[in-house]
Amino acid sequence: MQEKPVLEYQDLRELPVSALRQIIRDDQYTNHTAGLGSGFLQTNLAIMPQEYALDFMRFCQRNPKPCPLVGVSETGDPRMPTLGDIDVRTDVPSFSIYRNGSLDDTVNNIKALWRNDLVAFAIGCSFTFERALVQAGIAVRHIDENKTVPMYKTNIDTTPAGNFGGGMVVSMRPIREADLQTVKTMCRQFPLAHGAPVHDGDPAAIGITAINKPDWGDPPTIRSGEVPVFWACGVTPQNAIMRARLPFCIS
Amino acid sequence: MQEKPVLEYQDLRELPVSALRQIIRDDQYTNHTAGLGSGFLQTNLAIMPQEYALDFMRFCQRNPKPCPLVGVSETGDPRMPTLGDIDVRTDVPSFSIYRNGSLDDTVNNIKALWRNDLVAFAIGCSFTFERALVQAGIAVRHIDENKTVPMYKTNIDTTPAGNFGGGMVVSMRPIREADLQTVKTMCRQFPLAHGAPVHDGDPAAIGITAINKPDWGDPPTIRSGEVPVFWACGVTPQNAIMRARLPFCIS
Repeated sequence: MQEKPVLEYQDLRELPVSALRQIIRDDQYTNHTAGLGSGFLQTNLAIMPQEYALDFMRFCQRNPKPCPLVGVSETGDPRMPTLGDIDVRTDVPSFSIYRNGSLDDTVNNIKALWRNDLVAFAIGCSFTFERALVQAGIAVRHIDENKTVPMYKTNIDTTPAGNFGGGMVVSMRPIREADLQTVKTMCRQFPLAHGAPVHDGDPAAIGITAINKPDWGDPPTIRSGEVPVFWACGVTPQNAIMRARLPFCIS
Repeated sequence: MQEKPVLEYQDLRELPVSALRQIIRDDQYTNHTAGLGSGFLQTNLAIMPQEYALDFMRFCQRNPKPCPLVGVSETGDPRMPTLGDIDVRTDVPSFSIYRNGSLDDTVNNIKALWRNDLVAFAIGCSFTFERALVQAGIAVRHIDENKTVPMYKTNIDTTPAGNFGGGMVVSMRPIREADLQTVKTMCRQFPLAHGAPVHDGDPAAIGITAINKPDWGDPPTIRSGEVPVFWACGVTPQNAIMRARLPFCIS
């Protein structure tokens, strides 16, 4: 059997969404998708048994900045017709399988793991507003440096629902002071991509003690004249799900 | 036993929200609440067994303009702490009780009907953007005429979820052509109060054949130089709930 070619990030940058989806569906690409699918809203996926889905929806409804819900599947149906021709079992480059709150496996598709009681949630992510900032001529440091955005635990609490709760995780982008108001105004237009920043300036004000030691992602470069700006981050619902110690879930 | 005084609309107009809530909680006021609770987001309530709550949340997520979800209670808990000090069993002037999709009773509180499996949904309503329009000097005809806003069935379909679905219901306000753009821009700022209009101009384009015969509310007065402007309406989720013929629900 002929091996399918494994593609690199550069190969995919200019592809339309439909071609991109087919390549990922065929397991030919398993890396990150930042900057891909030009002009479309990118999302993170969380998949869990229906038993927990109502509480998780309540958690998202109560915490729309870290958990902007852009789509929810029918129970047991891996398609998401409200978002397009999507099969969540195959159309994501990489899946993390959690059992009882711990990472159990990482796989390229979940065809064998799909169950009739699963509900898939698509949660908006920051790629959407980052693209808008770049198009407006506002540099996004970690993209320019080809790094992962730095992410931090904070002392901001989420509003819990059922067993879902815990602190808000934020991502940070250094922004020139002169651009700060523009950035806030622009990002407010993308409520489904975390919206306006939750904080700017002193990291300690939201419980971040070491800006150069993010809890996830790469350490940032903050230049003179730049302010650290913090956005609610999609790691928040991921943490809330892990903290709830569901017997089974996928993200 | 001394009867509590029954209050009129005029008595309540200038009251702060906390006093208003106490009066309604005590069953001293059972009329409509348009224009009351200055500066707060007004909502409609839908209460249903948990069994249907996940589908209803999916319906609201898929149809945010007619069904802007502003709060969801925990199952069996009549409070809505994310919205304030609210007890949904008592803090609403009037409740309609539906059984198997038909109106069965109208009551002033639901203390005796509350069950441990009920979930309460608060859905944003147009009073919020109407107040903003009036404050911006844009007249809202049915308020000026002390009438109920005209509402119409349309040929716009909602995106279904489970048994919830059906056509979108819209409300109509005549707006001077010169104010149209301002109205659209302002209302877009209130996504939790139905947001920007879904249509303006020719009623037939959305399946409305008799603008002077609304399906609910009072016939409108449309003056020369005014355009009929249509907003997604909270009757949409009410209809979707009736159509789903739940064995028991309250709105």
